[in-house]
Amino acid sequence: MKAEKIILGIDPGTNLMGYGVLRVLGQKTEAVALGVIDLHKMSDGYLKLGHIYERVSGIIESYLPDELAIEAPFFGKNVQSMLKLGRAQGVAIAAAIQHDVPIHEYAPMKIKMALTGTGSASKEQVAGMLQRILHLDEEQMRQHFDATDALAAAYCHFMQMSRPQTSAGYRSWKDFAIKNKNRVKE
Amino acid sequence: MKAEKIILGIDPGTNLMGYGVLRVLGQKTEAVALGVIDLHKMSDGYLKLGHIYERVSGIIESYLPDELAIEAPFFGKNVQSMLKLGRAQGVAIAAAIQHDVPIHEYAPMKIKMALTGTGSASKEQVAGMLQRILHLDEEQMRQHFDATDALAAAYCHFMQMSRPQTSAGYRSWKDFAIKNKNRVKE
Repeated sequence: MKAEKIILGIDPGTNLMGYGVLRVLGQKTEAVALGVIDLHKMSDGYLKLGHIYERVSGIIESYLPDELAIEAPFFGKNVQSMLKLGRAQGVAIAAAIQHDVPIHEYAPMKIKMALTGTGSASKEQVAGMLQRILHLDEEQMRQHFDATDALAAAYCHFMQMSRPQTSAGYRSWKDFAIKNKNRVKE
Repeated sequence: MKAEKIILGIDPGTNLMGYGVLRVLGQKTEAVALGVIDLHKMSDGYLKLGHIYERVSGIIESYLPDELAIEAPFFGKNVQSMLKLGRAQGVAIAAAIQHDVPIHEYAPMKIKMALTGTGSASKEQVAGMLQRILHLDEEQMRQHFDATDALAAAYCHFMQMSRPQTSAGYRSWKDFAIKNKNRVKE
């Protein structure tokens, strides 16, 4: 395992696409970037997709992530919005494929569970936990929840990677923290 | 308008993605390529998406299309399959965006209507009409219907382009042929 690893987290959406860049050095983690790609003002679907592709490519070229973690969607929406969401995800995934960045997908519940210990945690709780773990500053905490959700996906992937031998052994960040007091920075 | 135009047609699917390349010279049209990207054997979703991205990029680089025409899907499927289809479309669209190829989308009914004069035409009827118009040879006619459907999308776009001033004036290829006997090669 190389010393430093960069994980790009993406929370895909058709109006706001959140992203968060996590730097991992051994067990140390740091939020390097946090933001959203705002697609509200683009009425044309292809313009939107083009914009997502360009922005995600740009983020990948800027931060050179080793891995991409994306939040998988719920399936509660209607077929038309699922197709739109799929397309938006598809162009983001294509940008990763084109840059040879491996992709990992996590269900929203799994991400919440990993961060807070409960799959039904609110976005506020997830952001609050990230703030504590990663010492996010005020400006970072002013970002959209789509951005903190994306960072949470990256963090979930870091947790998954850093304990492959015991992937079933920890049910949550809290659980992990309790069992690894020496590895957790208070 | 430049003399020669290449239109790439794509019929997106998650198991078979059809493509057809149409060369247009004035009112003369020719099928340059016809085929399918076979995704059956790929169990991993990201491998599939990567393969679609690579193949569509390769087709674009080989034939240098001026325009991409894709068949828009029906919305009858369930949300999970719509997300998958959306992703497959998304990576194909990303390949076009990356190569600066403008994208046009046509509903299946519109394509059938344009080719055969009826929105409820079968895939056989669409392929048969293409065979007559484009003088497809036997080998081309042995291709999957996904390939001829893709070529039909390209042809539909050609018809749309070649008569923008009367786009509402012709309801079908037959209608167009009747009103433009001098422009139709028998």
